[in-house]
Amino acid sequence: MKKETRLGISVKRDEDYGNWYSEVCRFGDLVEYYESVKGIYILKPSAMKIWKTIQRLFDAEIEKMNVEEYYFPIFVPGSALEKEKNHIEGFAPEVAWVTRAGDTELATPFALRPTSETVIYPFFSKWIRGHRDLPLKVYQWCNVVRWESSDPTPFIRSREFLWQEGHTAFATKEEADREVLDVLNIYSRVYEELLAVPVIKGIKSENEKFAGGLYTTSIEAFIPSTGRGIQAATSHSLGQNFAKMFDVTFEDKKGKRSMVWQNSWGLSTRSIGVMVMTHGDDEGLVFPPRVAPFQVVVIQVPIKGAADDQVLCNACEAVKSTLQEAGIRAKVDIRDNYSCGWKYADQELKGSPLRIEIGPRDLANDQVRIVRRDTGAKMDVKRGGMIEQVKDLLEKIQRNLYDVAKRKVEECTQKVETWDEFVKALSQKKLILAPWCDEVEVEKDVKKRTRGDETGGGGAKTLCTPLEQPELRKDTLCFASGKPAKKWSYWGKSY
Amino acid sequence: MKKETRLGISVKRDEDYGNWYSEVCRFGDLVEYYESVKGIYILKPSAMKIWKTIQRLFDAEIEKMNVEEYYFPIFVPGSALEKEKNHIEGFAPEVAWVTRAGDTELATPFALRPTSETVIYPFFSKWIRGHRDLPLKVYQWCNVVRWESSDPTPFIRSREFLWQEGHTAFATKEEADREVLDVLNIYSRVYEELLAVPVIKGIKSENEKFAGGLYTTSIEAFIPSTGRGIQAATSHSLGQNFAKMFDVTFEDKKGKRSMVWQNSWGLSTRSIGVMVMTHGDDEGLVFPPRVAPFQVVVIQVPIKGAADDQVLCNACEAVKSTLQEAGIRAKVDIRDNYSCGWKYADQELKGSPLRIEIGPRDLANDQVRIVRRDTGAKMDVKRGGMIEQVKDLLEKIQRNLYDVAKRKVEECTQKVETWDEFVKALSQKKLILAPWCDEVEVEKDVKKRTRGDETGGGGAKTLCTPLEQPELRKDTLCFASGKPAKKWSYWGKSY
Repeated sequence: MKKETRLGISVKRDEDYGNWYSEVCRFGDLVEYYESVKGIYILKPSAMKIWKTIQRLFDAEIEKMNVEEYYFPIFVPGSALEKEKNHIEGFAPEVAWVTRAGDTELATPFALRPTSETVIYPFFSKWIRGHRDLPLKVYQWCNVVRWESSDPTPFIRSREFLWQEGHTAFATKEEADREVLDVLNIYSRVYEELLAVPVIKGIKSENEKFAGGLYTTSIEAFIPSTGRGIQAATSHSLGQNFAKMFDVTFEDKKGKRSMVWQNSWGLSTRSIGVMVMTHGDDEGLVFPPRVAPFQVVVIQVPIKGAADDQVLCNACEAVKSTLQEAGIRAKVDIRDNYSCGWKYADQELKGSPLRIEIGPRDLANDQVRIVRRDTGAKMDVKRGGMIEQVKDLLEKIQRNLYDVAKRKVEECTQKVETWDEFVKALSQKKLILAPWCDEVEVEKDVKKRTRGDETGGGGAKTLCTPLEQPELRKDTLCFASGKPAKKWSYWGKSY
Repeated sequence: MKKETRLGISVKRDEDYGNWYSEVCRFGDLVEYYESVKGIYILKPSAMKIWKTIQRLFDAEIEKMNVEEYYFPIFVPGSALEKEKNHIEGFAPEVAWVTRAGDTELATPFALRPTSETVIYPFFSKWIRGHRDLPLKVYQWCNVVRWESSDPTPFIRSREFLWQEGHTAFATKEEADREVLDVLNIYSRVYEELLAVPVIKGIKSENEKFAGGLYTTSIEAFIPSTGRGIQAATSHSLGQNFAKMFDVTFEDKKGKRSMVWQNSWGLSTRSIGVMVMTHGDDEGLVFPPRVAPFQVVVIQVPIKGAADDQVLCNACEAVKSTLQEAGIRAKVDIRDNYSCGWKYADQELKGSPLRIEIGPRDLANDQVRIVRRDTGAKMDVKRGGMIEQVKDLLEKIQRNLYDVAKRKVEECTQKVETWDEFVKALSQKKLILAPWCDEVEVEKDVKKRTRGDETGGGGAKTLCTPLEQPELRKDTLCFASGKPAKKWSYWGKSY
């Protein structure tokens, strides 16, 4: 039988990151490009399995917080979308409009939700009457549409994507503030515990906050290869801005009417892209064991004339079953039109954390060969101790991926205090921690002055002001304006 | 404290079914109407919990069939949508079009998927090359948009709804045919085992089959109060029609190119509406225990001056915890601004299968009072035997709801052989089983002749030709045309 051949990733990660990422996502079977509409991607089974794992963790945590699942419509009337002036200004350029149904022009066009504040808050206004109706906490899993034209990238920036969005209303600012951070913690756990991606918790600048909100917290990841930060998830305090526009008020215990305090927060399929960027290598995808669709791929290594193929094949099936019975997600690559070398490359491309090879010698010695995807380390293990070893290795890989990623980000992180240091660090693709005066105009100015430099991708901006602040000496000056600094903020180019 | 009051359902089911249904859905907290867009509904937590239960059963079954989950885009280019002529003719009038993004008119407008054959099959064409790529089985959970103008009804007919759609391709017609029925069986189990709704498995007529397909199988439910059938889910054989249009071919083992055989199948949130229609009564919703968001609601019955409220309250919490530990979905209605009578009515409105009342007398006797939602039967049960009793009752209620519904449909079913019998049965809102010549024109004629009669709702049509056929005497004539009959088919008005 003729064995099929196929090319792997055609470019090195560190030589052409953009094309490397695109190939890893496509050849690794996470997405397919939708040729009919630019910036739209099909999510394939591996991507959906990872997304489901994220959903399960999130659902379990959010249930403990008494947030309830709803489904709100994808259609937003223009009048509602335009109620909060800053909000619509932020989203207007990328809103897709339905103007026709069948042959009929609609009297009032409907927007497809770019986010659902303006869909949901008219209902908050209706449902919330008294203090007993608070807190009101709703969330939904859905698709959203943002017709962005710049730089479409699978998972990272696409015109339709899947996400979870939460919307809550409280009687007091204190309760609302507390929830902003509680949710941020869950998002941080999704990234750090499941996806093995280190993130920084912080507060966005005025320039970068959610359109129409009071303040935005986020978790930020950093991609050392490109030297760019990436917003990984956001949890917004909306204050009372939307309550005012949508008339969301309640009567307190004393009969007084007040506006509610609102939050909104979201985590999207972008998380899968950040994971791919963080762990992928020149061979392809590298999945952390906790989210890997398959944790182990079993492959038979036939040797011509040595052993009966069927015996090997049965041994592989038996090993797979043993693994599955122990709760490990395992599969056998049983395809008979591919060589085992091809199968190894395929398993590496598709990111399963462990490969188990079984050849005639392994059979004779009652052992299997286990190969780690993250380090390439190989070891021969007796069949009897296999489960324990596999479980142990999966734990180790999960930890190692996080540790390596964390160390890389730390190595890229640089504290600067002057403009010259800043420019130099930026040219070296660093994640920059700098003292800042916290003035809107200064951030705009930094962006302008660093636009078009050799690192590409627009000007530098704040990624966040980390919740964990280094000590700020009393006389520290802003690296950019020379005015007294108010805080340490992370700066860099970003996705 | 002033106790709140509220009206229950304002109309009787058998007097004004349409308004009864709408009130049950709204007051029972399943949906909220979206005033901004006609025919669109917000799904509230109860509805979402039922939908999740359906998803869990379906996912588990479909995984056994090796169908994999994807996510395909909501946007369909017009050119793809229009490829299969019959298909676009079927859907064109209700397709919503995106024509603008931001301020820019799109060069080519995109349709929002009414169903995803035309989104997915270009990928089938790309992914399927040889016989090893078959069968290819994909499915997704998503929202779909059908801008229908007639008779919007929560769950039953709405302009955006949630569903699962499956799309599969096989090398042979035999495999495809087998899967059509395998999926229909899963759908039937969702209705009969989870939702306690009896359904009829059958084949749709040429008039009623899926636009562009070869043949359509469906499960049909029947609503005795209105005398209307309702299509509960469909599983289509597409034959090779779409394969031809989208060039989905494969090379077989001998190197010959052939077109694949395709199926598509779907189950939507309509299922929740059919369940509500089947079991609801004048007090409100009645949920089958297997899908009930809460299977038991515990309510304290304070008697003035008799016992300490806090003691009762603690007893209720303890009972709830005991139930939850036994895996029963239970909650306490702890609201202190409602009387217990109000809470009973509220629990009945919202459909929980069992209510447990605990008053001072129950405390003294170490017992609880259990009340069935379906029959209203009350019984006093010792605390020690409560769990066993509750579990037993939940099983009984599940079975009883199905049995009662089944009996009602059977009582409404009438076999007729002549036109006069048919017209009479139709006026009596029967589900009619009649011998038919199976001619398209005859069905159209029946529809025309029965339109505008006193039962309303358009003309009568075939609901399906049941897979289980009564014996057809050799000389049986079609009830409508007098020609030789080929089969027994179900006829009636429908949703």
